[in-house]
Amino acid sequence: MPVRTRVAVIGAGPAGLLLSHLLGRHGIESVVVDSRSREEIETTIRAGILEQGTVEILSETGASDRVLTAGRKHEGMELRFDGEGHRIDFAATVGRAVWLYPQHEVLKDLVAARLAAGQDLRFGVTAERVEDAETNRPRVVARDAEGGAVEIEADVVVGADGSRSVAREAVTGTYGGYFREYPFAWFGILCEAPPSAEELIYSNSPDGFALISQRGPGVQRMYFQCDPTTDPGAYGEERLWEILRSRVPGITLNEGRVFQRDVLRFRSFVAHEMRRGRVVLVGDAAHTVPPTGAKGMNLAVADVVVLTEALRALLLDGDESLFDAFPDTARKLIWKAQHFSWWMTSMLHLQPGAGDFDRMRQIGELRSVVESEAGRAYLAEGYTGRPLG
Amino acid sequence: MPVRTRVAVIGAGPAGLLLSHLLGRHGIESVVVDSRSREEIETTIRAGILEQGTVEILSETGASDRVLTAGRKHEGMELRFDGEGHRIDFAATVGRAVWLYPQHEVLKDLVAARLAAGQDLRFGVTAERVEDAETNRPRVVARDAEGGAVEIEADVVVGADGSRSVAREAVTGTYGGYFREYPFAWFGILCEAPPSAEELIYSNSPDGFALISQRGPGVQRMYFQCDPTTDPGAYGEERLWEILRSRVPGITLNEGRVFQRDVLRFRSFVAHEMRRGRVVLVGDAAHTVPPTGAKGMNLAVADVVVLTEALRALLLDGDESLFDAFPDTARKLIWKAQHFSWWMTSMLHLQPGAGDFDRMRQIGELRSVVESEAGRAYLAEGYTGRPLG
Repeated sequence: MPVRTRVAVIGAGPAGLLLSHLLGRHGIESVVVDSRSREEIETTIRAGILEQGTVEILSETGASDRVLTAGRKHEGMELRFDGEGHRIDFAATVGRAVWLYPQHEVLKDLVAARLAAGQDLRFGVTAERVEDAETNRPRVVARDAEGGAVEIEADVVVGADGSRSVAREAVTGTYGGYFREYPFAWFGILCEAPPSAEELIYSNSPDGFALISQRGPGVQRMYFQCDPTTDPGAYGEERLWEILRSRVPGITLNEGRVFQRDVLRFRSFVAHEMRRGRVVLVGDAAHTVPPTGAKGMNLAVADVVVLTEALRALLLDGDESLFDAFPDTARKLIWKAQHFSWWMTSMLHLQPGAGDFDRMRQIGELRSVVESEAGRAYLAEGYTGRPLG
Repeated sequence: MPVRTRVAVIGAGPAGLLLSHLLGRHGIESVVVDSRSREEIETTIRAGILEQGTVEILSETGASDRVLTAGRKHEGMELRFDGEGHRIDFAATVGRAVWLYPQHEVLKDLVAARLAAGQDLRFGVTAERVEDAETNRPRVVARDAEGGAVEIEADVVVGADGSRSVAREAVTGTYGGYFREYPFAWFGILCEAPPSAEELIYSNSPDGFALISQRGPGVQRMYFQCDPTTDPGAYGEERLWEILRSRVPGITLNEGRVFQRDVLRFRSFVAHEMRRGRVVLVGDAAHTVPPTGAKGMNLAVADVVVLTEALRALLLDGDESLFDAFPDTARKLIWKAQHFSWWMTSMLHLQPGAGDFDRMRQIGELRSVVESEAGRAYLAEGYTGRPLG
């Protein structure tokens, strides 16, 4: 016998969990499944910059009360190039801010909130496919951890199952999408040392990009541009610090034991379709952005806010118009976010094969932005995000 | 016997003529030579958009009284994409404007003003080389129209002799510079018809870029993106209009007899050096920008304003500091202008070989700019230019 619910959500990441939370506030019942264990979801280190709109949604709807107390508000950031740092003052230019609050902390809050609310939330359940997309009863066909068959029949199925989405096939058929791969990656480390700076430092150096970030009082997160084929184990600790120091001339880094290292690929993707019949895609299932500018989770939240309104109208009022318009509404936000991510990436990274003209133009661009009030505001607006909902 | 003067200027384009005008106001004598005839200089059709700072310099110093009366003030422009036009309101965003006033009209004004002031201005004199750059008496070696030798000895030699500069060799040695060639060009026409729009229309269409501009009550200037190898005679008139119409969907063009057509190459260039000893480069001799954004003449004017101050300090006060700093001061303005030209170009043109991701991102970028007050202001600021001097 299939499980029956109003909205079947594949994926207990930020998009899927927040959607079930917002639907719950409208009294719309959902079932959320994820192939991973709760522990895996709550401990995987991901991005950590939340736009103001994301923080407002999380805190005002009670999804995460901790973001405002345990998160760290940043009212500016530093752009560093040509040996000098330039602060972009978010507060002064656009009156907004971002919060440093790791994604797995958001997930912990959301899981706790959903379980407390009695959400049907199933870990270790792997969706295999979505069927009957073009009917009013689409179904998720899945398997639980013991290999037993699970079927969930719903009014709407939402694929919030990340970049390797299973739901996507039911929507786009051939996994079709707009795609771009970048000729570089980020080498990320976590290390035991107090923060080297109060705010994030985005550095364009002759040797390539680096980002100096924080994770807490005793832990720093740092990244530097590397070749996408780099092996995370390739460098000894001393070499890692040498590279990082050379990428932020003029800054003294607090160094400490490196206890995690990873290589993040740079890809941009937007699915050609975000909806087919009663199956829709949100978050990384619908789009991937490169990490520069930290748009990934924030864009997933924006999708979910738009979709919640559409589902409320569809399921409570029988009004299909917002649901029909969802892909177009979401797509405008997505392409603006894709552009912002591309812009931050292209302005700050050394492009392999770029000539000396391009290198000088890049410095001319950075100078244009930091020396112009409008330029600083345009950057700050994209970085801190627009109000949601 | 060589002619002796304080400043020898090679080139009677906007940079050279304006420099002699501004020096004259400080009582600094100069000699200007150009290989072309006065008629050729005064009739060659070039760019026609003057930044507000350029107009202020021309009008406030008496170099061109006509610019304010015969020129046409534009307080906005249109960005067109995805089938819709979006006005960028210069007045509302940055309180500045541009003037439509053709470059050859500026040149007529400057030639008339210089001759009235008794300027030693020699047409048909071709500079062959610059010698003794590293002494206090650098010399221009030239030939007049009859082949007679002309030598001009000066305190400073200024190469304002355009992109095929003869002076450049004395400064950079091997003609070295930062260089970028674009994989497209502009096909430009002049036609007999009243303006199709009050302000300029910059259009990004699926078939490529077009610019709808004006030249006067009965003459229009229009451009469309083409392959750089295109022969100006390649298209019949009907085909030209067909192409132009397809590039500005939603706009009705006033059509008329096409009486001039040309293909403008897209190049970016910045000389590695702008000064060697007592020889300096300004304008196109030091840098070339692609035509998008109309920075060419305006950047030449900015160079000249900076150089005038430096020469005043050097020649009247014996203070070399501004003259020594001239290349660094000018270079910051140049790379910002290079970036702006590249930005307008990359945002509006179809890039041969660009994938569908890049095409969608471009629309996302245009949408980000027009839908943001900060974005519109940042664009308007770059287009109308900063105050000079």
